[in-house]
Amino acid sequence: MQADTPEQPDTPEITELKAANQRFYDAFGALDIEMMDDVWDQSEKAMCVHPGWPALMDWEMIRQSWDRIFQNTSLMLFNIRYINAVVVGDCGWVTCTENISSVLQGTASNFGILATNIFMRTPEGWRMIAHHASPGA
Amino acid sequence: MQADTPEQPDTPEITELKAANQRFYDAFGALDIEMMDDVWDQSEKAMCVHPGWPALMDWEMIRQSWDRIFQNTSLMLFNIRYINAVVVGDCGWVTCTENISSVLQGTASNFGILATNIFMRTPEGWRMIAHHASPGA
Repeated sequence: MQADTPEQPDTPEITELKAANQRFYDAFGALDIEMMDDVWDQSEKAMCVHPGWPALMDWEMIRQSWDRIFQNTSLMLFNIRYINAVVVGDCGWVTCTENISSVLQGTASNFGILATNIFMRTPEGWRMIAHHASPGA
Repeated sequence: MQADTPEQPDTPEITELKAANQRFYDAFGALDIEMMDDVWDQSEKAMCVHPGWPALMDWEMIRQSWDRIFQNTSLMLFNIRYINAVVVGDCGWVTCTENISSVLQGTASNFGILATNIFMRTPEGWRMIAHHASPGA
């Protein structure tokens, strides 16, 4: 088990986990559903909570939600600040603050979101299996 | 890897995971900090997001927050509905809806919270290592 602390440099495992997390935000920022396909575990175990939405289960449902978000968004810039990052065996999770500048349905805004993202190690590398996002403090 | 679906009975691993999750809500409902001590991983890796709060890291900080919540609460009844439950190796997580009836600082209310709870298998059984709760949809 390894944890992210400000005092220590990241271990290779934590670096890998954060890279997977960054791929998620790269796909989100690119508004690119095919990049998102490569980030997620595409099974019925996948779970996604967009801020203020009910929980979505199953990759097919989750994929549709990203499609819909991407279609209604013209710009999404992320500044990610890590709160923690933990790896235990083949699982890892991060909690981070998403500082977002976006243009959604023609309206520009800046806001903060708090997200916990769970990843699973697979033969293809770390895949996101759960994303729980809520309005940031 | 095992997932909770309405069509199949829970596997023994999922049953254990849900029992650990129930112990968390039993401690919360009992407003009992010593029961909460037995639920959590008491390390600096523990992370807790109460609805609308900033993320808290480190068991000592988290314990103080529960103490404060318990001191300000006279009644907290939970009705838990599972959205999913997954075990991968020594990690497991659930997402659930907490339907809550509470009396907080003298005011009664009913509300829904959406929570993702991450657990880790230890020699003492499953321990909570992350709790991310947000206002329910």
